[in-house]
Amino acid sequence: MTARDHVPASPTSPEPIRGVWCPALTPVDDELRPDPVRFVAHASWVMAEGCHGIVVFGTTGEASSFSVEERIALLDEALAAGLPPERMLIGTGCCALTDSVRLTRHALDQGVAGVLMLPPFYFKGASDEALFASYDLIIQRQTRSDFGLYLYHFPRLTGVPITSGLIERVQAAYPTILKGVKDSSGDWTNTATLLQRCPDLAVFPGAESLLLPGLEQGGAGCISASCNVNARAIRRLYDGFAAGAGDLATQQQAIAARRELLQLAPQIAVMKQMIADQRGDPGWRRVRPPLLPLAAADAAKLEHGLAAMDFRLTLA
Amino acid sequence: MTARDHVPASPTSPEPIRGVWCPALTPVDDELRPDPVRFVAHASWVMAEGCHGIVVFGTTGEASSFSVEERIALLDEALAAGLPPERMLIGTGCCALTDSVRLTRHALDQGVAGVLMLPPFYFKGASDEALFASYDLIIQRQTRSDFGLYLYHFPRLTGVPITSGLIERVQAAYPTILKGVKDSSGDWTNTATLLQRCPDLAVFPGAESLLLPGLEQGGAGCISASCNVNARAIRRLYDGFAAGAGDLATQQQAIAARRELLQLAPQIAVMKQMIADQRGDPGWRRVRPPLLPLAAADAAKLEHGLAAMDFRLTLA
Repeated sequence: MTARDHVPASPTSPEPIRGVWCPALTPVDDELRPDPVRFVAHASWVMAEGCHGIVVFGTTGEASSFSVEERIALLDEALAAGLPPERMLIGTGCCALTDSVRLTRHALDQGVAGVLMLPPFYFKGASDEALFASYDLIIQRQTRSDFGLYLYHFPRLTGVPITSGLIERVQAAYPTILKGVKDSSGDWTNTATLLQRCPDLAVFPGAESLLLPGLEQGGAGCISASCNVNARAIRRLYDGFAAGAGDLATQQQAIAARRELLQLAPQIAVMKQMIADQRGDPGWRRVRPPLLPLAAADAAKLEHGLAAMDFRLTLA
Repeated sequence: MTARDHVPASPTSPEPIRGVWCPALTPVDDELRPDPVRFVAHASWVMAEGCHGIVVFGTTGEASSFSVEERIALLDEALAAGLPPERMLIGTGCCALTDSVRLTRHALDQGVAGVLMLPPFYFKGASDEALFASYDLIIQRQTRSDFGLYLYHFPRLTGVPITSGLIERVQAAYPTILKGVKDSSGDWTNTATLLQRCPDLAVFPGAESLLLPGLEQGGAGCISASCNVNARAIRRLYDGFAAGAGDLATQQQAIAARRELLQLAPQIAVMKQMIADQRGDPGWRRVRPPLLPLAAADAAKLEHGLAAMDFRLTLA
């Protein structure tokens, strides 16, 4: 008998998400404020290119670089412009408990598909018990219990890993709320372990270079930065797997090669540069410190590399 | 000719601080909200015990665990209760540029002695150029230029070191604003290098175990967690050095032994437990997740250790 048997599933709890999800870039204006017009256009485009949904304010969206008010305002503006909440996960995990509570409440009130939650990441060495206490309080302070929670494991940036033990603990306490995990460790062994140990959860590798191996082991798809510029090819591979198509390894290889090019410098700046260049909109280059726009030498390398592999955005 | 020669010193810019400064613990109520009554009593007591001033919302104050609004409200309440702003440094460095700008503006408007600023700490691998861009924007977005900025180096928790090169760059651009550095690396070699390379800055080791070596090399004192419970002894050593007294090494050793006991578990929880026990105020044990209150076994060890070295708070 598992913990699941003790807690009745909420009939209104949403299904776990699956597919190709894009952690959307956050374009900023010349005062470095989030730019809702560019954001809505870009998010609409990545969904038209094949993304099942977007993450608003993941790492690629420079989430931590914006205040709670800025994050709430951009989401409100995106929804007012007609972006579908059921195709959105919202990044809501902050260092401050009260910030995470507030962002999560706001997101859930908008009817989004779920929240993607980093652990509090300032203090290092937190035990599973301490991190459970953190997630537990955030959940307890919600007014709803019919939502989807996705844990966000990104140890290289947080220094605070989400272990299998922690996941199992959250799942035991909140079996109808915990729906999945985004594993941005880049470590296939970790993803494979999660896939094996958490068969009821939607496990997403944080890189499309692991899309096919993930799907083969029961993974839910991917949530990956590159979807901002390469959604169509990534979706094609996802659909190909579902249809039992052949030649998927070649597709996976081509996707990984594009990813490698995008990582010639910090990927957020690279993709913003690519969009700026290909859309003829220099304002897209802007990032918030501590990121910097792509240096000229890297921009030249990028342009050369994109041309060499004929890697172009579909222009609307 | 150095960069200093180009920028006239502001006649109103405050002198760098010196001495023994306490990064004050933040007591919380049973909803885990900052508790202004306990905070003011504690901060007043540490200053009465000998601290030249306090840091509001440093690491020991669990700064990152509180929202911007909570941080502003506690400072306002502390000042309204009569704590002297000129004896306060305020921690204002956040991941989000706009949070750091807002907290810094608010603090400076209260006439505090300065701000102690972490670098944005989510993204790792930021270059000196990127971190300079971050500090530069925060300073540029202030309405005042007559303030004291102290950079806060705590690489174990931030993963984002403040290098000598970055310090020199900020100093060259803002010679009348940059006043000092708190070095919480715990690495004497780093502190010694800063003392040598930045003779015009107030360099504070982040641990009282380095107080004497720091003073001997021209250091400004210390800003250290242990001042929450051991201010009197630390101040005595500081004053002894200034007076050219003998037997300072023995004092330094005794202080270091107390520090070692305080580190039997995460020091914030240990010191809150000690205050709770010795003041008979169990509410003082509370911390915000991802910290946890001291476990019972550790509390017993602590009590034993404190008794063994007769380490007791002066009760008001």
